[in-house]
Amino acid sequence: MKTGKRNSITDVEGIKVGHVTLDKDNIKTGVTAVLPHAGNLFKEKVFAAAHVINGFGKTTGLVQIEELGTIETPIILTNTLSVGIASDALIAYMLDKNDDIGLTTGTVNPVVCECNDGYLNDIRGRHIKKEHVLKALENADVEFEEGSVGAGTGMSCYKLKGGIGTASRIITLDGNEYTVGAFVLTNMGQKRDLIIDSRFVGRIIEKIDETKDLEEDKGSIIIILASDIPMTHRQLKRISKRSVVGLSRTGSYIGNGSGEIVISFTTANRFSHYKKEDIFEMKMIHENNMDLVFRAVAECTEEAILNSLITANTTIGRDGNIRKSLKEYMHILLEKKISAIL
Amino acid sequence: MKTGKRNSITDVEGIKVGHVTLDKDNIKTGVTAVLPHAGNLFKEKVFAAAHVINGFGKTTGLVQIEELGTIETPIILTNTLSVGIASDALIAYMLDKNDDIGLTTGTVNPVVCECNDGYLNDIRGRHIKKEHVLKALENADVEFEEGSVGAGTGMSCYKLKGGIGTASRIITLDGNEYTVGAFVLTNMGQKRDLIIDSRFVGRIIEKIDETKDLEEDKGSIIIILASDIPMTHRQLKRISKRSVVGLSRTGSYIGNGSGEIVISFTTANRFSHYKKEDIFEMKMIHENNMDLVFRAVAECTEEAILNSLITANTTIGRDGNIRKSLKEYMHILLEKKISAIL
Amino acid sequence: MKTGKRNSITDVEGIKVGHVTLDKDNIKTGVTAVLPHAGNLFKEKVFAAAHVINGFGKTTGLVQIEELGTIETPIILTNTLSVGIASDALIAYMLDKNDDIGLTTGTVNPVVCECNDGYLNDIRGRHIKKEHVLKALENADVEFEEGSVGAGTGMSCYKLKGGIGTASRIITLDGNEYTVGAFVLTNMGQKRDLIIDSRFVGRIIEKIDETKDLEEDKGSIIIILASDIPMTHRQLKRISKRSVVGLSRTGSYIGNGSGEIVISFTTANRFSHYKKEDIFEMKMIHENNMDLVFRAVAECTEEAILNSLITANTTIGRDGNIRKSLKEYMHILLEKKISAIL
Amino acid sequence: MKTGKRNSITDVEGIKVGHVTLDKDNIKTGVTAVLPHAGNLFKEKVFAAAHVINGFGKTTGLVQIEELGTIETPIILTNTLSVGIASDALIAYMLDKNDDIGLTTGTVNPVVCECNDGYLNDIRGRHIKKEHVLKALENADVEFEEGSVGAGTGMSCYKLKGGIGTASRIITLDGNEYTVGAFVLTNMGQKRDLIIDSRFVGRIIEKIDETKDLEEDKGSIIIILASDIPMTHRQLKRISKRSVVGLSRTGSYIGNGSGEIVISFTTANRFSHYKKEDIFEMKMIHENNMDLVFRAVAECTEEAILNSLITANTTIGRDGNIRKSLKEYMHILLEKKISAIL
Repeated sequence: MKTGKRNSITDVEGIKVGHVTLDKDNIKTGVTAVLPHAGNLFKEKVFAAAHVINGFGKTTGLVQIEELGTIETPIILTNTLSVGIASDALIAYMLDKNDDIGLTTGTVNPVVCECNDGYLNDIRGRHIKKEHVLKALENADVEFEEGSVGAGTGMSCYKLKGGIGTASRIITLDGNEYTVGAFVLTNMGQKRDLIIDSRFVGRIIEKIDETKDLEEDKGSIIIILASDIPMTHRQLKRISKRSVVGLSRTGSYIGNGSGEIVISFTTANRFSHYKKEDIFEMKMIHENNMDLVFRAVAECTEEAILNSLITANTTIGRDGNIRKSLKEYMHILLEKKISAIL
Repeated sequence: MKTGKRNSITDVEGIKVGHVTLDKDNIKTGVTAVLPHAGNLFKEKVFAAAHVINGFGKTTGLVQIEELGTIETPIILTNTLSVGIASDALIAYMLDKNDDIGLTTGTVNPVVCECNDGYLNDIRGRHIKKEHVLKALENADVEFEEGSVGAGTGMSCYKLKGGIGTASRIITLDGNEYTVGAFVLTNMGQKRDLIIDSRFVGRIIEKIDETKDLEEDKGSIIIILASDIPMTHRQLKRISKRSVVGLSRTGSYIGNGSGEIVISFTTANRFSHYKKEDIFEMKMIHENNMDLVFRAVAECTEEAILNSLITANTTIGRDGNIRKSLKEYMHILLEKKISAIL
Repeated sequence: MKTGKRNSITDVEGIKVGHVTLDKDNIKTGVTAVLPHAGNLFKEKVFAAAHVINGFGKTTGLVQIEELGTIETPIILTNTLSVGIASDALIAYMLDKNDDIGLTTGTVNPVVCECNDGYLNDIRGRHIKKEHVLKALENADVEFEEGSVGAGTGMSCYKLKGGIGTASRIITLDGNEYTVGAFVLTNMGQKRDLIIDSRFVGRIIEKIDETKDLEEDKGSIIIILASDIPMTHRQLKRISKRSVVGLSRTGSYIGNGSGEIVISFTTANRFSHYKKEDIFEMKMIHENNMDLVFRAVAECTEEAILNSLITANTTIGRDGNIRKSLKEYMHILLEKKISAIL
Repeated sequence: MKTGKRNSITDVEGIKVGHVTLDKDNIKTGVTAVLPHAGNLFKEKVFAAAHVINGFGKTTGLVQIEELGTIETPIILTNTLSVGIASDALIAYMLDKNDDIGLTTGTVNPVVCECNDGYLNDIRGRHIKKEHVLKALENADVEFEEGSVGAGTGMSCYKLKGGIGTASRIITLDGNEYTVGAFVLTNMGQKRDLIIDSRFVGRIIEKIDETKDLEEDKGSIIIILASDIPMTHRQLKRISKRSVVGLSRTGSYIGNGSGEIVISFTTANRFSHYKKEDIFEMKMIHENNMDLVFRAVAECTEEAILNSLITANTTIGRDGNIRKSLKEYMHILLEKKISAIL
């Protein structure tokens, strides 16, 4: 399938992504913000759904997404022990932009996702502060870095350096082009399991390194899917479930300790906080076309994960713990015949 | 059914509850902490389950409760816009008590529940601070106040003053006595809907007040169920669903804007963070006995809600907004024949 | 709230209901068919959702309703041990009306609901045959009987005679009238629990009968909700959950052995089996209006259950087992002051 | 990981599998029965869980498995339009073995799984009769055939001939050996998607055949997982979800029209229909050991699917429709260098 212009979630019109990176000594962490559209999200909510692949995780906001089928704030990503402070900062940000919240209308549902970057980062130090969240929101743009940046600064993927990755695909419906984008924060997997383009690269890397990977998988992956195809909550939930196909194809078997959460939204269906009519019109894709979307989701989730690996840099973190970049192995993987190593 | 010694969730051996109340001018809010047992909860987790009656709410921690079937922190209750800061404080508390978290073992799943006290409280001021959460944890005891205290300080129930309520029931199994307890933070409902002991008290109060209640239901209720009966996650989930019976009997029809969340745990089945054996023994109640537990849950949820009403005091809050206590109507309800009013 | 013209689920334009009653000696059973609209249901599916209150039941078809959000056959109700044969008959009926099924297009998802009428009926005899199902479909009309007819012939409700009941409510949206209807097959509850209009009638009946009810609750209730309000699958699921409010108010506490299943559909949103466009338009109610629908659902579920009681006749069934009609107690309940009995 | 003695689900002590095959002219269908243990399943139920990967399917019995966490009948597999009759036959079988059902105790929950074999089989003819189901149950043994037999007779997998497959893995816990087994009925996928041992074999086969596969995926897969490791319902549900990893690695992206259902059970935890004690003892695996089980599930689901392909025979069915066996391509795949073809 064809990729979008930037091969990025921001190929879906209106989406922006911003990072703040904290990278000093033992501190390898950060914040990433994903903005579903450029307007007032509280007043114009996007249709959304969530899916829990493995619930060993601390993402907040899913209960309301599932009940009301909408997202009404930017999505913040950070390290696990900073979810509380990031949530508090996001509430402050929303109050600042909406003086009706908590006064003349209800409250707001902050969506904050996380992975545990404790291997490289002094996570107990809880170095994320309110200003980092606000800065990540301010930094949001259609162009953004992948790899060891923002929330991805201290993350590990298949025991290599992971972090932020993205990819997109184009679909034609009724003669018009639509976009499906995936955005991931990768922090899961055992080295020996890594598969790239159906080759067992992880096992080769283990041979090259002459080490066996003994740690448990205490990781996670956050997968955000976006599209401009009109879908209902039920359909967004269905596409969320197909991201596990892309994940599996990179080698993961969804480890016990790896919290794996998917959030999907469409910019095509919106919900006005202040009602204009009792009944309103919307659109949805015919179910018989879902196969196209499913394939796009599987493909771009797989590619986004691999992009998070190939863009990340070798990082020495907390207590000298190290995660090497996949890039360091690429010349060996290309030079030697893989079959010769296996 | 027989009530427990204190008619309280703390009749379940080991449970403690603590409050911090902020009640000054426009500030009508607070924090309540529920401790499932007196030991190290992270190292000895209790079996638990969650159930979402209506997901228009911001409670955190449910995803992991549902995946792993355990609770590993005290449960904190506060106002909606303070969930982030309360979550952050609870993380700090857990790190303080467990120096392995985030270093040699994984992270921790804070459970923070909320209702919107914005009618009486300056909720936008976000007056809850870290120290209030720590103090509520410190205050925890088997004896605790009900009504307009702790997280219940600014809450409304059927547009009267609501807040904290509790009740318990005793069940005999294999000749031994077991306890089922309910604990609620009430903040839902329209005045005209209130039913007490199957009498439409709400309609009478509307007649007495000569006012019609025009606000929407933007409330919530948090229901915590506890027992010392050995149950699995699946069984705890089943009992969670029966709390809606008690809720319905007080008149609620589960309004759109009312986030209604149930968390259940048993102190009888525990999970050691550090594994001793690959396979371990536990107990469970035979399914044919569940009817007894279901009845106990329905009864003590209903009573806990009514207790939150009858113990709460009339409160004048933010911008002169007022919620009257049910107590103010009791003499009229008793004096006059209800049928004469209806 | 205002009731519809017939106070029936058939007040929703297009819905029809048909019965076949088997009532001879030990045989007290039957079939009821609910047709969501008069056209070809396979080719024009209605938007639908299902909700499991208590899954101790054998209703078929729910998996696909939940995945695709549609119903594509009439809904058949019968006794538990006849679900297989009713399902087979419904498949035959659908094949007969659609010669593409299984040949040039996929298969079909039969929806068959059940309760256990084994107390009054020789359920092991499995007296339902294919022709009874076809006849119930043929009998479908906007006018239909309630009480001890069709699938309700052998059912018990609060250990009195139960069966078929229905009710409806009118809602105004954007100046237009819409209908919400409930249809129930009642077979649950203990005598002492029955509440009518908030009076503990069940306890009075136990006093009158001078008997204590010792059987376990091995019943069930099937609740079908219908409307012409445009709703999505998510919204239909939300309204399904409010039926438990109506159920609770009649006294049920959702016993362990009582399978309680809700199916909801709207005739306003339809899905064409053969796609015309890749993306199509539909409508949905604004979430802020859901409270009206929730109230209507709670009210008409409660009334439908009570209607199933008041319309049913005393029945002597299998092995002389007897269920008395609520009607037999009405003169006593009216004559005596209830308080005098209690 | 080590395979069990037979590399079969029947390596889990007590499990038996039986087939009945209907293979004549246009009739390519059958029945397969999986018996969780050799005793009276209704009186000694096994702990179980279900997981819906994609709910475009008609499997019956899942609602009660999920509520009560048990299976109380053998599991029957057949074609989609024969689920009703198979369910009816299974009820007859259970009544015959248990004269208390429907008389002095409740009813029974038949579990019947299905795929659509309509491409090769005259599925509209509904050739499965009660006696075929009873015969499959009677035929059950620890040794059983894979491929185009029983329910697999007319099934297609990646548009090649599919059907029945199985595999098993051995795990050591507390020094003892335990078994995990997978059993599949395969009927899903597009030819070009097939991956074997991480090679894109499907694309090669498309090149060899010089045909493009234009049909939609209207298939399904049924995955049954079994073990003698003590697990709770929640843990069985967790392992069910890992089967999608094995499925994805064979190339599936979980097509819209492909109903994909997983049922898991453990023979180690049983539930007595007639209660002996109010509270009973059971065992469960420590959650930290789940990774071993997850890997075993992913591995043996993948292998079971591939086994269904490699054991199946080329079949010419209804209206001359043909599905070729993977075996027919093996010499080409082995002779030529795959890279030369790609």
